[in-house]
Amino acid sequence: MSTRIAFLKGHGTENDFVIVPDPDNVIDLPAAAVAALCDRRAGIGADGVLHVVRSASHPEALAMAAEAEWFMDYRNGDGSVAEMCGNGVRVFARYLRRAGYVGAGDLAVATRGGVKTVHIAKAEGAGHEGDITVGMGKALLPGGDVTVTAAGRTYPALNVNMGNPHAVAFVDDLAEAGDLFSAPAYAPESAYPDGVNVEFVVDRAPRHVGVRVHERGSGETRSCGTGACAVAVAAARRDGVDPALTGEPVTYTVDLPGGRLTVTEHPDGHVDLTGAAVIIAEGEVELAGLSVISG
Amino acid sequence: MSTRIAFLKGHGTENDFVIVPDPDNVIDLPAAAVAALCDRRAGIGADGVLHVVRSASHPEALAMAAEAEWFMDYRNGDGSVAEMCGNGVRVFARYLRRAGYVGAGDLAVATRGGVKTVHIAKAEGAGHEGDITVGMGKALLPGGDVTVTAAGRTYPALNVNMGNPHAVAFVDDLAEAGDLFSAPAYAPESAYPDGVNVEFVVDRAPRHVGVRVHERGSGETRSCGTGACAVAVAAARRDGVDPALTGEPVTYTVDLPGGRLTVTEHPDGHVDLTGAAVIIAEGEVELAGLSVISG
Repeated sequence: MSTRIAFLKGHGTENDFVIVPDPDNVIDLPAAAVAALCDRRAGIGADGVLHVVRSASHPEALAMAAEAEWFMDYRNGDGSVAEMCGNGVRVFARYLRRAGYVGAGDLAVATRGGVKTVHIAKAEGAGHEGDITVGMGKALLPGGDVTVTAAGRTYPALNVNMGNPHAVAFVDDLAEAGDLFSAPAYAPESAYPDGVNVEFVVDRAPRHVGVRVHERGSGETRSCGTGACAVAVAAARRDGVDPALTGEPVTYTVDLPGGRLTVTEHPDGHVDLTGAAVIIAEGEVELAGLSVISG
Repeated sequence: MSTRIAFLKGHGTENDFVIVPDPDNVIDLPAAAVAALCDRRAGIGADGVLHVVRSASHPEALAMAAEAEWFMDYRNGDGSVAEMCGNGVRVFARYLRRAGYVGAGDLAVATRGGVKTVHIAKAEGAGHEGDITVGMGKALLPGGDVTVTAAGRTYPALNVNMGNPHAVAFVDDLAEAGDLFSAPAYAPESAYPDGVNVEFVVDRAPRHVGVRVHERGSGETRSCGTGACAVAVAAARRDGVDPALTGEPVTYTVDLPGGRLTVTEHPDGHVDLTGAAVIIAEGEVELAGLSVISG
């Protein structure tokens, strides 16, 4: 069975998504249909699908409906369900703004990881959409010495947890990490029982860094929202800056292969992720496995 | 400067294309705009762009306009100009049929490699579009002993030229060729002064083979139209079949990672390539660098 459905394609620092607008939750999206949409050759191609549903229309979001009108039913590229995606929720907000469902300003978005607070900056003139910020929660620093090894060199790293585990290593040159075809080794293994995302970081200017990321399970990627946050927190501590002690927020500019993000850590420990989120195409797609639930 | 233009996305055995309908040739497509469309994360993503223009509207096709109404202005993913693409011209024909510009049956398409003859089979009922066949010209067999080496093993290969060079090696198991991250070595170097596309072939049944392809400059790909033709001709000769001698056409089924193609070699040496060609999405895209020439 095959049905034509509306879609958009967008990305945040080249972390890209197929957006499926479905306010009333009538589009059936089994894992195979999601994988078909995300197939980069036989489908549209993306890292994941943002299924846009009103919270009141989705059983997993009903309890959040009073707080957040919209639910980001996020799916990974293989069709599996995911809790949250920092770049995804920013592109999700861009879609809602573009479709006229919401205005600029603050917005609450329901996700499987709870309600997230998003801020859509005002447009900066024709053709210059405002950046979108998402609250990414608090960074945890479990402590303990960890190391990562890539291209035959071992580096000390900082263990940062942004809801998922990171090892942040400062290097002299991003090319040192080699081709990153395979996952960097890390030690001790007990520090990361479920594997780890590894960031290699160089200084570009005061409070401005360049980063390459190896995401566990995916390989080297163009961008990683939690990785950018972990890097900013690690860089602040290395620079002797801790907002909890100074009472002042601190902001780092983080350049990833896919573009620039800025990360602000607040005195209460919350971390905000800010950057561009763009929609580049919209239309209709027809693939095997897509279907609409008839009334 | 940025402009919204109509696009479609389609593929032939997962060799995928962004289609830009532009009968009057008013859309300016500099290399940077093509590369932006083909970018798999920041754009739509594809192996190349099929710019659909009336031959009478394009200076490079004007001389073919009496013979072929439509010109396939084919661009590689990096924006460079290309002469021909066997899977591309089949998807190009699917678009013309779907848009109602042409009916089922024979169709002449102007390309930078000359006028190509395409046949669009009648639809086989609802949801089952007919296959599309394109005449790929004659195979040349330059002769001479060549070998290819992959994953530490060296195989004898047949040198077949389909307008571009191929080395076809029969193996016991497609996994033998290893990961094909790097190009297989070949000997003698003088056989292929401009490099070579390498096919590894296993038998699946009489006149039915499975293939993996390493395309020079691209790495392992999901499909290669000229490669499928080279493989069929090589398999026929290995099987002691030559249509020039028997006066009968011979057909091979060629399974590539991206799907099934059939190849027919005729007694006069011409080779036809047949398979599915599908359009999966259509809409509008807006990217920096796209612009329309105003009247």
